[in-house]
This record gives sequence, C-alpha cells and structure tokens, in this order.
Amino acid sequence: MDDAGDVDALPPVEGEFAPGEHDPVEPAHPDLQIPLPGSVLSAVSLRVGPDADFVELLVRLRNAGADVVSVNSFPATRGEAGVDRVLDVEFRDLDGEAAAASVRDAVGVASAEPRPTLGQIFGKRVIIIGGGAQVAQVSLGAVTESDRHNLRGERISVDTIALVGEHNIANAVRAVADLPRAHILVLAGSIMGGEITRAVLELKETGIPVISLNMIGSVVDVVDLVVSDPVQAGTMAVMAIADTARFTLDRQRGRRL
Amino acid sequence: MDDAGDVDALPPVEGEFAPGEHDPVEPAHPDLQIPLPGSVLSAVSLRVGPDADFVELLVRLRNAGADVVSVNSFPATRGEAGVDRVLDVEFRDLDGEAAAASVRDAVGVASAEPRPTLGQIFGKRVIIIGGGAQVAQVSLGAVTESDRHNLRGERISVDTIALVGEHNIANAVRAVADLPRAHILVLAGSIMGGEITRAVLELKETGIPVISLNMIGSVVDVVDLVVSDPVQAGTMAVMAIADTARFTLDRQRGRRL
Repeated sequence: MDDAGDVDALPPVEGEFAPGEHDPVEPAHPDLQIPLPGSVLSAVSLRVGPDADFVELLVRLRNAGADVVSVNSFPATRGEAGVDRVLDVEFRDLDGEAAAASVRDAVGVASAEPRPTLGQIFGKRVIIIGGGAQVAQVSLGAVTESDRHNLRGERISVDTIALVGEHNIANAVRAVADLPRAHILVLAGSIMGGEITRAVLELKETGIPVISLNMIGSVVDVVDLVVSDPVQAGTMAVMAIADTARFTLDRQRGRRL
Repeated sequence: MDDAGDVDALPPVEGEFAPGEHDPVEPAHPDLQIPLPGSVLSAVSLRVGPDADFVELLVRLRNAGADVVSVNSFPATRGEAGVDRVLDVEFRDLDGEAAAASVRDAVGVASAEPRPTLGQIFGKRVIIIGGGAQVAQVSLGAVTESDRHNLRGERISVDTIALVGEHNIANAVRAVADLPRAHILVLAGSIMGGEITRAVLELKETGIPVISLNMIGSVVDVVDLVVSDPVQAGTMAVMAIADTARFTLDRQRGRRL
C-alpha cells in the first residue's frame, strides 16, 4: 500500500467539500433512480379505480416520452369514491406535470399529480445487515456521518435489517442487488462465511461494494474493506458513496483496519 | 385513560409471543407488497436488452394471471452481451416460476428467474426521520427491538434519513406515504412544527401511524404517541407494527411518555 500516493486517505485532502461545493465525479454505482446533473427524473402519483388499466397508463406515459424506471402500487386508504389503488410511477426524460397531463383523462384515473421521486428525497442507501447489537452500532456511525453530508446537499439514507442465520443473511445479501438505490452494504456480525460469502461474491458482481466488520469466517476475505470498529465502518460506508467526500473505496480495497 | 382496561400496556399480557406463535391478526396497515397467509406474492428478475418491450412483458405477466404490485429497473452491470437492464417485477396471484415461463421467450429477454420479493426479505419498514444524533438513538432502540421479533419469524427493517430544515423534513414525511412497505414513522428531532405538522396530518390519512420524540413545536400535538426517550421510541415503533407483539398503538393514542 503506497500511502504517500493514496492522497484520499490523508487529511486534509481526504476531507470534505464545503456546502454546495462538489466534484463533478462520475457516479461509482450506476442507478436509474438517482438524480443526475443534466438529466430529468420525475414521478407521478395516480389515484385509480378498478376500471383503470395499469398497462394503458404505462403506454400513455411512454408515448409522452417517459422512460419508466419504477412502479409501486398501494391500496388507497382515504376512502374516496371510485379509488381503490394508488400507483406511483417514476421515470426519466419527462417532467412530472407533462406526465400527469398524459394520463389524467385515462379511464379509471381519479387524479394524477407530479411528485418528487424517492431518490430525490431519500437518495442513495447504505444497507446494514447482521446482528442487532452490531447493526445498531454501525447504524450510529452511518447516520451521524450521513447527517454531515446531507447538510451539504447530499441525500443518503441508512437502512438496516437485523437477522440471524446463515441462510437468512445470505438471502438478504443477495436481495440487496434488487433494492432500489442501494449503493453499499455493511455486514455487521461476528461469524459470517459459507453461503454468505458466496452471496457477497454475487452481490459484488452487480457493482455494489461491501464493507465488513472484522469477524470470524470467510466473509472478511472477499469484502472490499474490513473495519473492526462498527461506528467507523458505518462512517466509512457513507464516505464511500457520498459525492461530498473525497474518500474512494477502490484505493483501500483489501485493507483491514 | 383506563389503564385497567388497557391490557396491552400491562406486562405480562403486553409481552410477546414465543417463536412460531402468532396471533392471526388483521394487518393494521394494508400493504400489497407484504406476504399474507393464504395469498401468493412472488417476484421475477428479468435481464433484458434494448429490444425488450417493457409494456409487452407486463402484458404477458398479466395474461398469465399476475397482479403486478411493483417494478424496479436497474442498469445491468455484469457485461453480458445483449443485456443492458435488469427488471425486477413483484406481483400477487401467480407463482414465480410460472411468471418467469410466461416471459422467458419474449423478444429481448436474456433470462427470467423467480426471486424472493423485497417484502419477503426486508419486510415491514420503520422509518426514522430527523436530526442525526436523535435518529441514531431511535434507530438503536428500533434495531435492537426488531432483532428480537425477527428471531421469531417477523421481518422488520429499520430505515432512516438524517435531514435538517422544515421544508426538507416535511417533504420527507410526505414521501413516507410513497415508500414501499413503510408501516410507521418516528420523528426524531428537537423542534418540529409548521409545514412538518401539516405533512404529518397528510401522512396519517394514508393510515401510517406516527410516533414523535417529545420536542418543541406543534408536531407533538398531532402524532399518535409522544415518547421522550429515543431508545424507547424506536422500541415502541417496532412493537406497534410487529405481529409478534401484543402492543396496540390505538389504545395509547395521544399519550405522552
């Protein structure tokens, strides 16, 4: 490890940007649901009844120019007549008002309103998986660090699940690839190997980096970075995905702290 | 408050269920993306190329019997020839293998595989919004409590965002209504009122309960429960949505602890 060349790890260069000051960096992890400078990302919320045709609505949005990147459906709970579901649709390349106008007169649509996308509000996600005590400590570090970046214009949220068992944890690690806006995973446990290690290798193929606490088992041999202190592990996970930090995980790959 | 009648708040009845032992309760918050006994919830992951027709794929799934409840699109990162996007589709009323078979031979589809749904892996979500120091403490309580329920067959994840400013927090509160599988919100700050209070009232219309720390501002007057200790606030949020706890927020509405 050439620390002299590894300026990202040396203060003050490692440091942080002032509020509003960003590097025009390429995003490390490609994500259709995160706002990018120069691209349009919007959402529309539709309150619809049983006559609404889900597919017709998507065709209309596409014909208006939308590249749909996500759809979520909820039961309507406000008790309006003729409304049983809410459809939230996120898309690129079309603004929210134009999208709403394109579907407002479709059969079964009671209302269509532009909305901020989940990526605009909740941003990139740090995912923490493992045992409760350690997940809570990693989360403490990650939340505290994300606060400092969110103050300067970032949007990073910290999402966790406490689980027990090799099979449960391996399945959750694999599913991180399917989680919208997940940009990094921290494994917070004491023993992880076997199927979990195979799941980590699969997840890394999708481009999502993995930090692990120092622990027993083979997981520590395949992750990008091993950090013994859980608060520091959470902090470094946030630094690794923040556009407002100069820390690059690539330069630290394989290190154990 | 009739504490004697409020058996949910008195130990040991308030307690918890043994592993595997559940009350056959109606879910408090209707959610199309959470598994329910007796209903089928499945997912399929499609790796597709530029020739794939998003709408045709959804029509095929619908014709096979699927009631699509969510779609998420990701850039493909594994570098397979002819694949540029991954489409994850979740649906009710059809099993994953039948769904995969219905789209496997469509134009532009390189592979179609059944997958667990995000609700099966990450379950119901506790959302914590506010200032970093307090979000971290509420998260500590919620993660630790969720661990105890997840051990007994629940799936509860704890998701947070640290934000500053009335407008930012109000927008995040409103957006909780659009977050898949969000079942309860905890507001973790020191001063919240004005636009945030209006956002809380809007959110409560969607059926999502709100717990708040004791704080300055009008938010404490409109939430379902005020809890002074952040660790307890996180703990009670998990108890309120866990099928493995007998705690019912309805009976505590308006209390301040």
